[in-house]
Amino acid sequence: MNNIFDSIPGDLSAEVFDQLVAGDSVRIERIISKGHSSPETGWYDQDCSEWVVVLRGEAILSFMDDSSVTLKVGDYINIPAHKKHRVLWTTPETETVWLAVHY
Amino acid sequence: MNNIFDSIPGDLSAEVFDQLVAGDSVRIERIISKGHSSPETGWYDQDCSEWVVVLRGEAILSFMDDSSVTLKVGDYINIPAHKKHRVLWTTPETETVWLAVHY
Repeated sequence: MNNIFDSIPGDLSAEVFDQLVAGDSVRIERIISKGHSSPETGWYDQDCSEWVVVLRGEAILSFMDDSSVTLKVGDYINIPAHKKHRVLWTTPETETVWLAVHY
Repeated sequence: MNNIFDSIPGDLSAEVFDQLVAGDSVRIERIISKGHSSPETGWYDQDCSEWVVVLRGEAILSFMDDSSVTLKVGDYINIPAHKKHRVLWTTPETETVWLAVHY
């Protein structure tokens, strides 16, 4: 058994991605951000859908249609495959812990 | 956008299961327990694997090999398909909010 809030690296100069489960058709990932936006340029354009929940911290996702959404602790959103999106902002004050399910 | 901690029913006389995502090969579910153990008799014996994290509250899972594990906030565990298990206990003091990914 592990804890989703444990083993947060001290060096968060870059976002940290940890794979928790890799099945044939699903990938569960923990992402730690701290003041990051991503990707550095352009948009995420993923072949799979992604369901994501913020478990600590705060973030803003933006979409290519100019909409955006602020995610606080417990907020979750489903991002269909190929819906172009980016992480516009994460709070610099604390780690933002995301749980992402790619399916 | 929704919040995983919102819309917790007042009536928790039975466990509450909410399906958040239903894909071809994955099902994401929120489960609310409050003092429940489950199933009422016997064991869960599932065709799919289940990854589960406790986001609020506290629970004990037990397995057919007599092992058990206490899950507190943030603790997660992967339960392979057909590994027989049951929820032995959840705290009666508050809701236990589980996030389960069946895959």
